Amino acid sequence: MTAPLHDGRPSGPGRSLPDTQQGMRRRNLSRVMHAVGSEGPLSRAAVASRIGLTRAAVSSLVDELIRWGLLEELGPERPGRVGRPGSALAVSGRGPAGIGAEIGVDHLAVCAVDLRGTLRARAVRHGVNRGRAPGPVIAELTELVHQVVAAADGEGLWPAGLAVAVPGLVARDGRTVVRAPNLDWHDTDLGALLPGGIPLSVDNEANFGALAELWLGTGTPHDFLHVSAEIGIGAAVVVDGQLLRGRRGFAGELGHVPVHPDGPACACGGRGCLEQYAGEEAVLRAAGLEPREEDRVGLLADRAEKGDEAVRQALRDAGTALGIALTGAVNLLDPETVVLGGALAALSPWLLPSLEAELTGRTTGPACPVTVSGLGSEGPLLGAAHSVVRTVLDDPAAVAERL
Amino acid sequence: MTAPLHDGRPSGPGRSLPDTQQGMRRRNLSRVMHAVGSEGPLSRAAVASRIGLTRAAVSSLVDELIRWGLLEELGPERPGRVGRPGSALAVSGRGPAGIGAEIGVDHLAVCAVDLRGTLRARAVRHGVNRGRAPGPVIAELTELVHQVVAAADGEGLWPAGLAVAVPGLVARDGRTVVRAPNLDWHDTDLGALLPGGIPLSVDNEANFGALAELWLGTGTPHDFLHVSAEIGIGAAVVVDGQLLRGRRGFAGELGHVPVHPDGPACACGGRGCLEQYAGEEAVLRAAGLEPREEDRVGLLADRAEKGDEAVRQALRDAGTALGIALTGAVNLLDPETVVLGGALAALSPWLLPSLEAELTGRTTGPACPVTVSGLGSEGPLLGAAHSVVRTVLDDPAAVAERL
Repeated sequence: MTAPLHDGRPSGPGRSLPDTQQGMRRRNLSRVMHAVGSEGPLSRAAVASRIGLTRAAVSSLVDELIRWGLLEELGPERPGRVGRPGSALAVSGRGPAGIGAEIGVDHLAVCAVDLRGTLRARAVRHGVNRGRAPGPVIAELTELVHQVVAAADGEGLWPAGLAVAVPGLVARDGRTVVRAPNLDWHDTDLGALLPGGIPLSVDNEANFGALAELWLGTGTPHDFLHVSAEIGIGAAVVVDGQLLRGRRGFAGELGHVPVHPDGPACACGGRGCLEQYAGEEAVLRAAGLEPREEDRVGLLADRAEKGDEAVRQALRDAGTALGIALTGAVNLLDPETVVLGGALAALSPWLLPSLEAELTGRTTGPACPVTVSGLGSEGPLLGAAHSVVRTVLDDPAAVAERL
Repeated sequence: MTAPLHDGRPSGPGRSLPDTQQGMRRRNLSRVMHAVGSEGPLSRAAVASRIGLTRAAVSSLVDELIRWGLLEELGPERPGRVGRPGSALAVSGRGPAGIGAEIGVDHLAVCAVDLRGTLRARAVRHGVNRGRAPGPVIAELTELVHQVVAAADGEGLWPAGLAVAVPGLVARDGRTVVRAPNLDWHDTDLGALLPGGIPLSVDNEANFGALAELWLGTGTPHDFLHVSAEIGIGAAVVVDGQLLRGRRGFAGELGHVPVHPDGPACACGGRGCLEQYAGEEAVLRAAGLEPREEDRVGLLADRAEKGDEAVRQALRDAGTALGIALTGAVNLLDPETVVLGGALAALSPWLLPSLEAELTGRTTGPACPVTVSGLGSEGPLLGAAHSVVRTVLDDPAAVAERL
């Protein structure tokens, strides 16, 4: 296993590179990649004006990026423009790819995304993972990784990194799952179990979901609170386009914010935590349904859709509890918006009215707006793959060293 | 009024400067100032090894900083070291100074701090400001600023900036007090009222208190939650050595985190907010005391010290409420530590046991440690003055342009 290239933290364009001539060049290589990636195809002149460097400086950077196979020339721009026609540049659809993986409670998924952000390969395996030991689960995941890497290889792509989303708390080393209660995994070093040779990062699914929202969502601001749910309630705090991780990497535990401090005991050691009111099992129980190993969210959405009043009331109450916990979070963080993702997105029609009533009723002035993610349950997997792609865009020279 | 030099946000060494040759030089000038400021006196060679540049590069930077009067040479280092004796460098005790000011509910204070971090002048005026219009209060504060600037001038110091701590919410423009309930000020533009000519920044007292803790506290980590109280309960979130401000600049409103969601109505529009249980007025009421315009914290501490059981019980209950709200905050932010500052520091002997019991009881594994600030009520004023000093250290070239 090589040292991790990426720790799951998106840096800005080469933000952590040393402040030397060489560091400056590396940052500027990154600026070119980001400019072409987000606004391309662009001519060299357009890149120069976007990033505030001279055309000569940009040409030298572009030449290097083309030599490394990270940018490609599309040929002369269409005529009719003023001046000598420039050749349009695009990010390469070959070369390094981000491999994303997700360990879900009831599925495993792996995908490959190229530097353009296009999904190029995908493999999924359904089956309950709860209570299984990490070894066999990771062996299956590794199989899927090999499948996806082989498929990507067939299209001229090689894995620049592997990022794995897990439903649990991950240490700041970016490889150890400290606690994944819904898998019953504790202190599991995925770095020792996954295939070597590909730089690895492991992160909480809520974090990757939030990053997906930040990078792929439409109009998502740079300061938001992303709330999602699979079995528990997870959240991720994005500040100024960066994940807030906390000292141990455990930030975003919205599910254990006390809602009714004298309420029912919670596995976390607390009482009356949000999860006791808005977690999937709590909602199923409140609706009089048996928590089984099936598509619980689909079941709830289906029943609510059909007008099942017990389910609707359970979801209304969950929305109220979410609204109380989010009032505290909004007071602490003053985010631009709250985004409901994952299972909460699918259930939002029945959660939102009571949730927003609490937020508005407990606030002077305009309440923080709540939006629903368009990525839904795909967020964590896509966020994982894109986190690797961002690593390449953030420091293309580091990838070139591995060519 | 000149444009604000400083928006209250501490940048790292020149963090926001452009990535050009000139920007790189400005960042390196900042690195030299920070190295000498935090570890000096240092020789040029020692600076070079601290910041990872060549001696030649450092000599050129140092010469410029000496020419600007920001560094000074102390003469040859003591003999007995190997090699040619180098001249030790220190940050200058003359030149630019940070002027800090505080608008308290019952006092006004202004101070001057030099680039070495030494307090050089101070003026205080006691008297209740609650309910007074901003105009007369700011006129009095301006008088104090003039006194302190005159005293500093007598010592060869000139004001590089004026930073004002206020007990209220400040807009991200760094000059408008949006809401200061304990002064009854709303949407008050202090920039229009304060003397022109000195770059101005206005910020919430809890933010400046937290920055003081970050910069001056002993062993304060770079990720912590600072909780303070004057009349309300304020908090500030420091992440990776930076204040988390929020979209509108309102982050840190711990006082309005719901503790008992069906509890008493709060002025914020909510119910059962922390302030209803742990704010000064709530504690005085619970202890059977009349809230008067006197030293309320002193009164509570004095009575608790003497064994007044009603006061002790009121403080225990306040500690419990703080513990519930902090459990939520710690779950969301995963800080390295919680620091009690301001009035809470003085009352900590009676608050801490019940506060820590809640935090520990509601957590699996080790609870987040809670420490007590040694700066107490001086924090916001010192934080304000030091924020100006940091601005100079962060971009010395910008100050040189004003020489």
